[in-house]
Amino acid sequence: MNFPSKLIEDAVTEISRLPGIGKKTALRLALHLLKQSEAHTEALALALSRMRQEIKYCKICHNVADEEECSICKSHRRDGSIICVVEDMRDVLAIENTNQYQGKYHVLGGVISPIQGIGPEDLKIESLIQRIEKASESEPVKEVILALSATMEGDTTAFYLAKRLKEKGVSVSTIARGIPVGGELEFTDEVTLGRSIMTRINYNTD
Amino acid sequence: MNFPSKLIEDAVTEISRLPGIGKKTALRLALHLLKQSEAHTEALALALSRMRQEIKYCKICHNVADEEECSICKSHRRDGSIICVVEDMRDVLAIENTNQYQGKYHVLGGVISPIQGIGPEDLKIESLIQRIEKASESEPVKEVILALSATMEGDTTAFYLAKRLKEKGVSVSTIARGIPVGGELEFTDEVTLGRSIMTRINYNTD
Repeated sequence: MNFPSKLIEDAVTEISRLPGIGKKTALRLALHLLKQSEAHTEALALALSRMRQEIKYCKICHNVADEEECSICKSHRRDGSIICVVEDMRDVLAIENTNQYQGKYHVLGGVISPIQGIGPEDLKIESLIQRIEKASESEPVKEVILALSATMEGDTTAFYLAKRLKEKGVSVSTIARGIPVGGELEFTDEVTLGRSIMTRINYNTD
Repeated sequence: MNFPSKLIEDAVTEISRLPGIGKKTALRLALHLLKQSEAHTEALALALSRMRQEIKYCKICHNVADEEECSICKSHRRDGSIICVVEDMRDVLAIENTNQYQGKYHVLGGVISPIQGIGPEDLKIESLIQRIEKASESEPVKEVILALSATMEGDTTAFYLAKRLKEKGVSVSTIARGIPVGGELEFTDEVTLGRSIMTRINYNTD
């Protein structure tokens, strides 16, 4: 595309570096901003810039936070004996929205992915081990719940973590994989269906 | 969503004000920026801010430009006796990409839309009339091509412009509406097919 303005070209180039946004969408967004007030664009640019520069990560769970410690780690209402291990902040938000979990979190910052060159040392795994070791006196960690995506990378990470954590004597569990609530059996893929049969829940044990 | 950080919340709010981007996509983009280097986000913020503050509009055709006059209006190779009237910059880019048009442009900045409260006075219509009046001595405008979208608003604008321009004694034409090249007749909607029969091209007149 031959842009009539270098300014627009630069903006389109930068916007289209975002994931899932191509040149055409970037141009549409740029022209939208030009139609809005200057204050609108300034607010956007400032919010992005401030977020990137001033963001902090909780020193305990590594979730995004405005302070040294996030509100969940600071809270005395949350059960510190259970730690839910997730990939990133979006997973924390998703689990928080269920209102079903009262424990704490640990944000890995990714999953093990040999293809993308991400190994265990690139994730906050040592920090999790240390957290469990340090916590043992006051409020010992009893259980670690692995809430990772049901992908090859997620499973690899879960397998690695389970091996490392068992040495520490904590109970390790993973969230159930199965048919989504509301999902119809006949439309469920074979792998999910197969797994949900293998990991079936026995009503008698309750 | 209860964000763990006000900085992220502000960024997500601002990003999700862009058209076609919801809260979830905005959060995905914000987290993407956090994973990239600070320079990446700074470049994006600066490009947006500079574009909005420093952008100029060509004083002749009102297209986006870096100077007082755009490169097309300044060019002596372009035929000033034909003016193609379009809605915005994207239409200029689209027509330029065809390499079929050697005349000049006039960017209206929108189309007449009573629902959105956009009347003829909100568009660069008077400026087009004046441009035709002023040009009459040196290089008179012979033809105005209306290249507007085939929507209700586009047609309304074309009808209004045709009425205004005929008083000025210039020939007014509109780009052909019909079956797209490569389009199959049986899958064309009735309105398009009906129009393409009504505005059929007679081979004998050539």
